[in-house]
Amino acid sequence: MSPKARPLVGPEESLLEKKVRQHLFRLRVRSKALASTGSESEGNFNRECLLPILSLPKPAQNPFSTRARRAQSNSERHYSFRHGFILTANDTLTGVIKLGKKVVVTGVPGVGKTTVINGAMERLAAEGVEYKAVNFGTFMFEVAKKENLVADRDEMRKLAKDVQKRLQQAAASGIAAMSGDANIIIDTHSSVKTPTGFLAGLPEWVLRELMPDIIVLVETDPDQILMRRLGDASRARDMEGSRAIAEHQEFNRAVSAAYAMYTGCTIKIVRNENFLLEQGIDDLVSVLR
Amino acid sequence: MSPKARPLVGPEESLLEKKVRQHLFRLRVRSKALASTGSESEGNFNRECLLPILSLPKPAQNPFSTRARRAQSNSERHYSFRHGFILTANDTLTGVIKLGKKVVVTGVPGVGKTTVINGAMERLAAEGVEYKAVNFGTFMFEVAKKENLVADRDEMRKLAKDVQKRLQQAAASGIAAMSGDANIIIDTHSSVKTPTGFLAGLPEWVLRELMPDIIVLVETDPDQILMRRLGDASRARDMEGSRAIAEHQEFNRAVSAAYAMYTGCTIKIVRNENFLLEQGIDDLVSVLR
Amino acid sequence: MSPKARPLVGPEESLLEKKVRQHLFRLRVRSKALASTGSESEGNFNRECLLPILSLPKPAQNPFSTRARRAQSNSERHYSFRHGFILTANDTLTGVIKLGKKVVVTGVPGVGKTTVINGAMERLAAEGVEYKAVNFGTFMFEVAKKENLVADRDEMRKLAKDVQKRLQQAAASGIAAMSGDANIIIDTHSSVKTPTGFLAGLPEWVLRELMPDIIVLVETDPDQILMRRLGDASRARDMEGSRAIAEHQEFNRAVSAAYAMYTGCTIKIVRNENFLLEQGIDDLVSVLR
Repeated sequence: MSPKARPLVGPEESLLEKKVRQHLFRLRVRSKALASTGSESEGNFNRECLLPILSLPKPAQNPFSTRARRAQSNSERHYSFRHGFILTANDTLTGVIKLGKKVVVTGVPGVGKTTVINGAMERLAAEGVEYKAVNFGTFMFEVAKKENLVADRDEMRKLAKDVQKRLQQAAASGIAAMSGDANIIIDTHSSVKTPTGFLAGLPEWVLRELMPDIIVLVETDPDQILMRRLGDASRARDMEGSRAIAEHQEFNRAVSAAYAMYTGCTIKIVRNENFLLEQGIDDLVSVLR
Repeated sequence: MSPKARPLVGPEESLLEKKVRQHLFRLRVRSKALASTGSESEGNFNRECLLPILSLPKPAQNPFSTRARRAQSNSERHYSFRHGFILTANDTLTGVIKLGKKVVVTGVPGVGKTTVINGAMERLAAEGVEYKAVNFGTFMFEVAKKENLVADRDEMRKLAKDVQKRLQQAAASGIAAMSGDANIIIDTHSSVKTPTGFLAGLPEWVLRELMPDIIVLVETDPDQILMRRLGDASRARDMEGSRAIAEHQEFNRAVSAAYAMYTGCTIKIVRNENFLLEQGIDDLVSVLR
Repeated sequence: MSPKARPLVGPEESLLEKKVRQHLFRLRVRSKALASTGSESEGNFNRECLLPILSLPKPAQNPFSTRARRAQSNSERHYSFRHGFILTANDTLTGVIKLGKKVVVTGVPGVGKTTVINGAMERLAAEGVEYKAVNFGTFMFEVAKKENLVADRDEMRKLAKDVQKRLQQAAASGIAAMSGDANIIIDTHSSVKTPTGFLAGLPEWVLRELMPDIIVLVETDPDQILMRRLGDASRARDMEGSRAIAEHQEFNRAVSAAYAMYTGCTIKIVRNENFLLEQGIDDLVSVLR
């Protein structure tokens, strides 16, 4: 999805578009919130009908959507249906607001996740496909700082579970809202290894808000990861053997399957092998394009 | 569960039975819908009490159910409790309506899923155990055609995600309703391999409606699957190596574990090895019987 | 969490503490129930404010909590936040009620789960850390007996699925309530092998009530498990080969990943190798401490 494709509304609808975007942000782009939004009358929106695509009524029950869809070519119809809103005024289609893709990229420490993300974004930018990259942990820290809960990032780990839960949910909701304007890459972990075991990076309350389109697992051979960690003096990491790394990657796959069940997102495995970085970037680009 | 076991209501209740079946269909056999149906008074049902077994009140709180259950032998009690309804009129048990089993059968392309299903249904029919086989994708296509969304099956893939989601939910609800009359085999995929990754065949909104009793994974050695695919010239399949097939089967197991968590269904692995088809059919029959 | 740490309320608040405990029990310690409990006025609680930590309002919106939290040291703040309640009277912090940890310990038959649990509890007791051990199946049986549904444990298996579901939920809710007073070890299965396939030991309706903090998988080499089962003449077990045991352990990992997604609990793998029992106990103790 290229950014050029998004402004489907004409110049005269730009104010409308802006309003809808603001409205989207207010709604935090949550499907639940949208589901109940059959029509809107607010400010300049009076007499406009905002049809949330997420809960389109059946053709027979709604004259607007049928006509609107007939007015578009087949490809446009499907395209516009993907995510977003059909805008109509007095039974006439005035525009379509699309939502961006939400792609979560995960990988165990040392797998080279950030390198692959940066390579893919660079190549996509050259193609005219824009993505914003968001680090989930950083976004969550910003939320916590705004609430005066923490001063530095180290304090995040010390926060109580229930506070962390609320912050995670707020971060997920905020990131999902960003997709009203752009395609998003969310940099996070499928699972985190803690002293009391594996912790799901995307628990149910995060998934419910975020509803990602794709979750990418960047993987490679555990021995290669071990060597990369040994060579990286800049980060103090708890050392673990390659068997433990293999176990972590296996748990990541298992928990990502649960994410797929709960959200309907796809799970893409991208290999980042030694000497084959370009191949890994290619694979990620093909998913993001 | 044999079909002979089902008509537990006597000849004089056959109209009642029919009505209840229609009622069941209207309710779409959804547990949520049933949960609120403590008693019914509608047409011939006046003064009848339809106790949904899915939400039986505690014995002390409901004189009907206690008495009803006491009136039955122990084995009948448990039997009738499995799925379905106890029918009572003026505090007297008049009958029991059972719901059929819902068994999902899955497997990667080329594993021989359809062969095993057909073999099992043939053998069960000989034993007097009836199953209806439904292909999830075909059922969904029929729903889409009725809504004039598509003309041929190829257009299904091109539908927007949110439309597909609604159609999946409608299909799951319709198939669940069929179990009011019969045992059902649902032929579908545990996960589907798409260009953007593995897609859950039974996402949360499908499971919520379908609530299967058993999910069967038909599996075999990846090399055997590869050879079967190579030998099958009739279907144009994207070729993948045996390592990729192994990965797909592993993802199927992982995602089926999530299905088990969400629905409480059992996950049965049935092997369909070369030269051992009868063994595979035996295993499936033992689960369906 | 040692028991000494728990009575944070002074002697004059002990009646209050008792009341809150009773209140907690009544609420069955369910997060949903707690979420709506902004303030309480009941009996001795009049003019008291019970702030559920699970849904703490933002500092700016609630003068109580800000002040209450400021009154505590940083470490106490985080500590008290973990689980439980802050008690305030007339805008003054009067105490903190903590909830115990809920740790589920699972493992296939023959892995030596009970041995590891007993060893860990003994060592923790010596350290002054108290845990109550509850067997999920036994607790569920007690609930069923109270309802006159069964006379002996053998009848449990014969109960209808929907009755079993209700009993499971009641047991989970009861066990969760126990954590209002103590740390709990819940002895159960990640999945159970049945004739129709693997059954999730902690399905969605159990998880929703129980909301465990940690799920421990006690594992070991399938061959060792096989030998232990062969040597245990006291229990009649269906014999299965080491490949089937490996498959069962793999399914346990997969389904536990789904548990982690749904509840946010951590998944800890503890190995119980031959001749290395002390190591296994050490690992479990480190998680429970």
